[in-house]
Amino acid sequence: MAKPYIGVIGASKISQEFEKIAFEVGFEIAKRGGILVCGGLAGVMEAVCKGAKKAGGTTIGILPGLARNQANPYIDIAITTGLLEARNLIIVRTSDVLIAIDKGLGTLSEIAFALKMKKPVIGIGTWDIELPLIKVKTAEEAVTKAWENLTKH
Amino acid sequence: MAKPYIGVIGASKISQEFEKIAFEVGFEIAKRGGILVCGGLAGVMEAVCKGAKKAGGTTIGILPGLARNQANPYIDIAITTGLLEARNLIIVRTSDVLIAIDKGLGTLSEIAFALKMKKPVIGIGTWDIELPLIKVKTAEEAVTKAWENLTKH
Amino acid sequence: MAKPYIGVIGASKISQEFEKIAFEVGFEIAKRGGILVCGGLAGVMEAVCKGAKKAGGTTIGILPGLARNQANPYIDIAITTGLLEARNLIIVRTSDVLIAIDKGLGTLSEIAFALKMKKPVIGIGTWDIELPLIKVKTAEEAVTKAWENLTKH
Amino acid sequence: MAKPYIGVIGASKISQEFEKIAFEVGFEIAKRGGILVCGGLAGVMEAVCKGAKKAGGTTIGILPGLARNQANPYIDIAITTGLLEARNLIIVRTSDVLIAIDKGLGTLSEIAFALKMKKPVIGIGTWDIELPLIKVKTAEEAVTKAWENLTKH
Repeated sequence: MAKPYIGVIGASKISQEFEKIAFEVGFEIAKRGGILVCGGLAGVMEAVCKGAKKAGGTTIGILPGLARNQANPYIDIAITTGLLEARNLIIVRTSDVLIAIDKGLGTLSEIAFALKMKKPVIGIGTWDIELPLIKVKTAEEAVTKAWENLTKH
Repeated sequence: MAKPYIGVIGASKISQEFEKIAFEVGFEIAKRGGILVCGGLAGVMEAVCKGAKKAGGTTIGILPGLARNQANPYIDIAITTGLLEARNLIIVRTSDVLIAIDKGLGTLSEIAFALKMKKPVIGIGTWDIELPLIKVKTAEEAVTKAWENLTKH
Repeated sequence: MAKPYIGVIGASKISQEFEKIAFEVGFEIAKRGGILVCGGLAGVMEAVCKGAKKAGGTTIGILPGLARNQANPYIDIAITTGLLEARNLIIVRTSDVLIAIDKGLGTLSEIAFALKMKKPVIGIGTWDIELPLIKVKTAEEAVTKAWENLTKH
Repeated sequence: MAKPYIGVIGASKISQEFEKIAFEVGFEIAKRGGILVCGGLAGVMEAVCKGAKKAGGTTIGILPGLARNQANPYIDIAITTGLLEARNLIIVRTSDVLIAIDKGLGTLSEIAFALKMKKPVIGIGTWDIELPLIKVKTAEEAVTKAWENLTKH
């Protein structure tokens, strides 16, 4: 079976707690053979990539700007879109399922787009809003739920 | 002074109550000399344009597809982006302030992008979420608040 | 009949000769009731808008950046896309027919996209290349050809 | 040194001769350790990816639509942009240097954008136009020139 593309969305500034969770999410995704898709910058994006590389995975960074060196050091494949925040859409479109960590505004836009496109979204510590998000508490639960929901698609 | 660009965001399917409010929002925007920016389709978008044209205003529809005839009949200027939902970003980028009506998912994405870009958002019956939205109940309040917040920018 | 959208494409730096031609193209488009679509900046874009406003027309500037004040002073409707050069596509998609003036690289990209989308392109002093461009010498011929080709669409 | 990103641009329908050349270009790129960037579809895109995979390389397909299965079978990483032809810009922005094969209209748009962004373009059997293209005849020359021009950037 083809490898699933797992999008992880979250802000470029995060607490140590969310950094740890993001690392674990990336590690679990790679361990199960998923391809990690993210925005390629710092914070959640860097931590999740670091985790994925620790487990030998593949990481894609879909960057807002034109410079490849904006990518965090754990990105394997950097896509320089030059579309600024409109690149958020491409993260969502490229992913089969999304895991949202914490409460960034960019993250909220991505959750909204993902649900509009009928892609499942798993949330850890994210926006408390009347949406069909699958809420979990740990990195392992998040990744388990991501795969469970994948199979329905 | 140059005319302000007022974005109105809302879904293509709405209740009669929101349709009435959207019409009044459009009417008030045009009466005060604002240029109306919206997604150009049906529902909130059509009602707000109908109101704006009733008051002799100018309406811009930033369409997701390639066909101009997707625009509702009250659009003066139709921009056919062919970017699908990514056109939501262009609505936000083109507007000085946004008025969100009801709870569409596209609307939520636009609220998130607008706040990320530090543009004020006025909400009527929209998402109940921990965001710096300016919440109002009537069309007139919404448009008054839009102009008040404009002057701060 | 609905007003046609006439795209005029050309670089932001031009000779006096092309400036004069662009002005006349804009004037003729407005005189015949067309809506002018362009990239909104200086050079060909400014001259064509100046001509269109002289004849009382409507001008749309589809800008690459986020700042409305990048638009030349003859733009009525400024769309701030924030997509950088990708906005060239939106100029082409929004237009029914295109008039290319001079030999900019952005202009060449727009000619290629327009022909790919099967939209007619009229050229004045533009690229000498094995393409089905309709080549003309004067502003009046260009606008006449634009309308003739419109009717076929 | 980080791996260079080599864009290969060409149409989805090609002659057997160009198919063979595209295959060899892909093979040579991978042999030298480049990452191949392309539009992900058939024709030149498929042949170049097939060659790259034959030499054990990595292939990125930046797709116009929303469906990953539009990608040719030799794509490792599929980016589903949903931007239609506007994805051509992302191919150019993501690449360090471009190799253009044959005379597609999409290819012409990409050549124009690449030169506008001051990225070198190597051409094989492509448009005969007054542009600073580096023209070559064989796949090996093309890839050699791509690397030579890389070092200048």
